[in-house]
Amino acid sequence: MDNTALFTANNLWMMICTGLVFFMHLGFSFLEIGLTRQKNTVNILFKNFFVITIGLIMYALGGFNLMYPGFEEGSAGFLKFAGFGIAPPDGGMTAEYASAGYTWWTDFLFQGMFAATAATIVSGAVAERIKLNSFMIFTMIYVGLVYPLIGSWKWGGGFLDSLGFYDFAGSTLVHSVGGWAALVGVYLLGARIGKFDSNGKSNAIPGHNLPLAAAGVLILWLGWFGFNGGSVLSADPELTSLTLVTTCLAAAAGGISSSFVSNLMYKNYDLTMFMNGVLGGLVGITAGADQMGPLDSILIGIIAGVIIVFGIALIDKLKLDDPVGAIAVHLICGVWGTLAVGIFGAMASFEQTIIQLIGILIVGGFSVISSLIIFFVIKKTIGLRVEKEEEIKGLDMAEHGMASYADFRLNQN
Amino acid sequence: MDNTALFTANNLWMMICTGLVFFMHLGFSFLEIGLTRQKNTVNILFKNFFVITIGLIMYALGGFNLMYPGFEEGSAGFLKFAGFGIAPPDGGMTAEYASAGYTWWTDFLFQGMFAATAATIVSGAVAERIKLNSFMIFTMIYVGLVYPLIGSWKWGGGFLDSLGFYDFAGSTLVHSVGGWAALVGVYLLGARIGKFDSNGKSNAIPGHNLPLAAAGVLILWLGWFGFNGGSVLSADPELTSLTLVTTCLAAAAGGISSSFVSNLMYKNYDLTMFMNGVLGGLVGITAGADQMGPLDSILIGIIAGVIIVFGIALIDKLKLDDPVGAIAVHLICGVWGTLAVGIFGAMASFEQTIIQLIGILIVGGFSVISSLIIFFVIKKTIGLRVEKEEEIKGLDMAEHGMASYADFRLNQN
Amino acid sequence: MDNTALFTANNLWMMICTGLVFFMHLGFSFLEIGLTRQKNTVNILFKNFFVITIGLIMYALGGFNLMYPGFEEGSAGFLKFAGFGIAPPDGGMTAEYASAGYTWWTDFLFQGMFAATAATIVSGAVAERIKLNSFMIFTMIYVGLVYPLIGSWKWGGGFLDSLGFYDFAGSTLVHSVGGWAALVGVYLLGARIGKFDSNGKSNAIPGHNLPLAAAGVLILWLGWFGFNGGSVLSADPELTSLTLVTTCLAAAAGGISSSFVSNLMYKNYDLTMFMNGVLGGLVGITAGADQMGPLDSILIGIIAGVIIVFGIALIDKLKLDDPVGAIAVHLICGVWGTLAVGIFGAMASFEQTIIQLIGILIVGGFSVISSLIIFFVIKKTIGLRVEKEEEIKGLDMAEHGMASYADFRLNQN
Repeated sequence: MDNTALFTANNLWMMICTGLVFFMHLGFSFLEIGLTRQKNTVNILFKNFFVITIGLIMYALGGFNLMYPGFEEGSAGFLKFAGFGIAPPDGGMTAEYASAGYTWWTDFLFQGMFAATAATIVSGAVAERIKLNSFMIFTMIYVGLVYPLIGSWKWGGGFLDSLGFYDFAGSTLVHSVGGWAALVGVYLLGARIGKFDSNGKSNAIPGHNLPLAAAGVLILWLGWFGFNGGSVLSADPELTSLTLVTTCLAAAAGGISSSFVSNLMYKNYDLTMFMNGVLGGLVGITAGADQMGPLDSILIGIIAGVIIVFGIALIDKLKLDDPVGAIAVHLICGVWGTLAVGIFGAMASFEQTIIQLIGILIVGGFSVISSLIIFFVIKKTIGLRVEKEEEIKGLDMAEHGMASYADFRLNQN
Repeated sequence: MDNTALFTANNLWMMICTGLVFFMHLGFSFLEIGLTRQKNTVNILFKNFFVITIGLIMYALGGFNLMYPGFEEGSAGFLKFAGFGIAPPDGGMTAEYASAGYTWWTDFLFQGMFAATAATIVSGAVAERIKLNSFMIFTMIYVGLVYPLIGSWKWGGGFLDSLGFYDFAGSTLVHSVGGWAALVGVYLLGARIGKFDSNGKSNAIPGHNLPLAAAGVLILWLGWFGFNGGSVLSADPELTSLTLVTTCLAAAAGGISSSFVSNLMYKNYDLTMFMNGVLGGLVGITAGADQMGPLDSILIGIIAGVIIVFGIALIDKLKLDDPVGAIAVHLICGVWGTLAVGIFGAMASFEQTIIQLIGILIVGGFSVISSLIIFFVIKKTIGLRVEKEEEIKGLDMAEHGMASYADFRLNQN
Repeated sequence: MDNTALFTANNLWMMICTGLVFFMHLGFSFLEIGLTRQKNTVNILFKNFFVITIGLIMYALGGFNLMYPGFEEGSAGFLKFAGFGIAPPDGGMTAEYASAGYTWWTDFLFQGMFAATAATIVSGAVAERIKLNSFMIFTMIYVGLVYPLIGSWKWGGGFLDSLGFYDFAGSTLVHSVGGWAALVGVYLLGARIGKFDSNGKSNAIPGHNLPLAAAGVLILWLGWFGFNGGSVLSADPELTSLTLVTTCLAAAAGGISSSFVSNLMYKNYDLTMFMNGVLGGLVGITAGADQMGPLDSILIGIIAGVIIVFGIALIDKLKLDDPVGAIAVHLICGVWGTLAVGIFGAMASFEQTIIQLIGILIVGGFSVISSLIIFFVIKKTIGLRVEKEEEIKGLDMAEHGMASYADFRLNQN
């Protein structure tokens, strides 16, 4: 068939993007451990390993079929994916998939990597005081049920899609879904011991490894090549390459903007602001990465960078303790990026902005309510937060009995 | 020609997979240094750099032609590859290669990256007490001769291939070949000072950098996209994407399984068990990654995770000192994965299981005997193990005169 | 159209190579911080983030159009790229681009990633004593004007191209352009306090994190798959795969050679020499990676490895203080690689060697003069070097008020 080569190239691109989105889990891991204290490092790594592994298993057992109920009418359904033997109908290339540009297998794996991301966002915000068991239970429910259900409303062809809501790669459907749960978690958990003193003054709690945090941001940026580039759902040369350009320009502009603004406000060159500005730009462009031109992208990134600086200050002022800045990056910039689709680029119109706002509110409301219910039930049963002594000692020893750098020594020679 | 686009896409996929397998060397490096003591870090990194560089050179000088003697009858042969000038016959696209889906150059480089892997597996197991010179000599012989010779029996179209032995991407031909040599090396070297006390009690020797070890596992997982995905030897959409799905599900299931079982047994959430479970799942799926369905892969991964927990305990009970768990991961799970081809998936049959067992025994026997001879001759001539004082001081100062974190300070501000 | 699949595959390869060149910025970051002292880590990371972000923005605002003035006659021009709305003429696929094998967007992003590299090379050499503001100003001018102007002489179809000068992927146009500026910067800045004592004796100043430095080198090697492989400007199977083979063999040979020679000279196995030998081999093959055979590449790498050992000694003897060895790697091996095009491989001839030499001198002269002017003006106005107390205290606290490992502790358990 003449289309074999094109299908092969499209599927190939989607597999690469799948690998890149998977690699984001290393980026998140590095970012989270780098910006937190050493005594909780093993715990955070364990959580990250849990999220990516259980995320894929949950998505195979049910999430995939829940999120795309319209596909594969004859064969799919809850608990159907992982029940197959060697081959799905037509070896993963039913008529629907042959026209889609990638196989059923690729579709599952790309979407499965996305699903795990939402929970990872929560992981950073609730770090350094959440109980491991409680986080694991939350993750299984949020990744296995809440995320795919919300996703089905838009990407599964549901009512948000019919409404005209646009979210190219998930400023709302991934980043805000994670961000809202992060906000709820942070609110219910309360601040880490020592974060706010009795007068309400906020104390900076510096992270233990900025090189790894910085590496995490660069790895996440690279991963976004796949996150946004793969959301084209084919290797279409014009759309994929435009998407990479807008993604990179927004990231660059976000970093420049946040470092410049934070330097104006606080009179120093703050590396973590630079890093969060890059991430803010990336989240901000995600909803409309295929709808913007270069200048639009730079402007979206610049605004995201400003939002990061003021957003982090606002969250601190509200006495919310988010160790890694996840709420400002994923929630606030996720909202901004979703609105930006109505303001900049090819789809800009007042009507679209209103539709975007409606989508933001519906998804936000559902995310808040569902995460509130899950976290609340956990809190009332097994509890959300570790004991005070465990928090002071650190979760690595308290929950794992392991130190992250057990043999580290100085002045070796 | 109509096939140009398809050939280009196929070759492109193989080049990407080559890059991913290369990247596994960073994964192995991080894993090995992370799980060992700081005083041997420079030494391990040096060994890893040596393995990848000399591995490629040896493969160019002879290994490639030794492993694929049937290819390019007219032109190839021992010491032929690197002897060429600018172009091989037809610019790397002889008739044989044109139908294969990739060029002669791609074939060499992909297989060359594989070759270096076998020696890297040994590196971790013998770490912290082997002499650098001795390891380098072993590597040159094992990568340059033993690995390609064994590979030729199956992948080069030799007698194991005729027998019906199946090993898709090398559970046996790569991982066990490395694993058997690791076992022999560990046995001949003896345990590190302090690992087993006079009563035979085993002492845990914790690693110095779990964040890098965890990063190593995630990088290896990503690298396996290329290791298994590239073993399709084309970008065939159905087979490559199925392979990535089975690879990722086995990795996820292996991690969940080993962390769950080790929690049942030892009552704590052990991050290194989680990590080794992921790796065990990856090694376990490697032999049959293109023959399994999702559920098969999850089951193979779960069993690999259980094997890891008990395998590591067994090796410890046998007074074998394997600092990174390489024998459990690469040897035992390699054997398991090879057998699993006869038990699960499209090829499952009693006969196949027997054939798999025969292949395991033949390759195992040859690997053990050849590594025994090489290590024994080295031991009797220049010696295998460093002096006691050098081991206590650490190989970084003893063999390299360098410290891994020479300028590291606390409380900088 | 029958060509759609081929165009898609070509563009796809170029996008992947773009991602890999982007990823080199993590490699450079790790290498630079790993080989320098801990007290300047945040500063170096900040510089690296600045280079990649401002580099992309400057390239969008003007550099791209400056470098390729001949393209897109009707639409392009200074400040034109980022001025576009959603779509350039024909969605990034004008007639010129349709025949080129990739879209306008891909072209911009791939070249933009290259542009930032030149400044990153300077960053390492001037580390630990340059003022942040001064470095940022230099970067903006060098990346925004000097680099694209020089690039236009060859890759933009200018007079060096007409002359027959050959530089496949930038041994001269990228690496030497960065290397010459590094040399000028190092000369004008002077050595770090304590590097040379009053008798002129050179003191080694060890880096603080060799594991990250080693990771940086492996990441850079992977990035070179894109740097050289993408310079084919299509996914042409023969040329891209040949290029990857020559690139990897030169890297391997460079590492083996430099570690062997440095062991002969200094009687120890020096990991940083091994690492710089790999990088020297990579820079050395870059100018002719598509013109060499395997044996040529190995020889070019071996010579590059020897150059590294003696080059680093020479620079030290000249009392030039280059903390990461950037001048030996990027300048000297860049010159060597450019000359090697006339000595080895398909283009070897005496005439070509002379043309290569002319190109080296012209580019070198212009790079030296322009970086001398920029650095000199900065020195006379805001100053180049930090205060003595700031240098002793470290740039992290002096310029950023942040410590790189603020919460790092020993003996956590």
